[in-house]
Amino acid sequence: MTTDSPDSFVRSFTALLAAKNIDVASTMISDDCEYDNVPIGKAFGPQGLRDTLTGFFAMCDSLDWEIVRQSSTGDMNSAVVLNERIDRFVIEGTTYELLVAGVYEIRDGRITLWRDYFDQSVLMQAFQAASS
Amino acid sequence: MTTDSPDSFVRSFTALLAAKNIDVASTMISDDCEYDNVPIGKAFGPQGLRDTLTGFFAMCDSLDWEIVRQSSTGDMNSAVVLNERIDRFVIEGTTYELLVAGVYEIRDGRITLWRDYFDQSVLMQAFQAASS
Repeated sequence: MTTDSPDSFVRSFTALLAAKNIDVASTMISDDCEYDNVPIGKAFGPQGLRDTLTGFFAMCDSLDWEIVRQSSTGDMNSAVVLNERIDRFVIEGTTYELLVAGVYEIRDGRITLWRDYFDQSVLMQAFQAASS
Repeated sequence: MTTDSPDSFVRSFTALLAAKNIDVASTMISDDCEYDNVPIGKAFGPQGLRDTLTGFFAMCDSLDWEIVRQSSTGDMNSAVVLNERIDRFVIEGTTYELLVAGVYEIRDGRITLWRDYFDQSVLMQAFQAASS
């Protein structure tokens, strides 16, 4: 992975997660990585990533996370990457679109921060529909 | 303003608005600029900016919008700027902190898109407190 740029690293990470490949995505984050879903809460490290996403991924028939805009500063030793995404996910045949802005920090070749900003009402609506 | 970089241009724009200086900030956006508060709605152009912010600014004793991280791509002819902010505002003596991610596009020396991602629950809480 040493040939990656911060830009391509975050794109790969995002694509792996949208493919529900938590195993490989987990190798791209640091042991103490902060994973912060701003309106909901934080988790830490590979296990935190897994705990947060496993249940959600199990609910989803499929996911498509589109990066609309992205800008990065720095290199794989130390970088900030910010993006704007449309996180699409299908639950019981219904497609939901979550409009998201993501903030990432990279240190020593791994993601040390992943923070997503969004309005939680869309997510709550999807969860309620899925549990009804 | 031709000596500005996209990075400094957005920093100036943000500081002007936090100082409630809509008049000067308005000159930095295009006539058809899209101003999108994602969970709430869109407004367009200098008048839309004014209509959206005048009432809010009137409620606020003071504002302090801190840019925590920012990254930009391009130049003043065509650029994308993304940032992470803490928008602090004081209403009736109480300080609120709105955690925001902003997306900006610049074309031909002016801001043509300003889109803010945040969870609206903090904002609604402040508005309810102010109107009670």
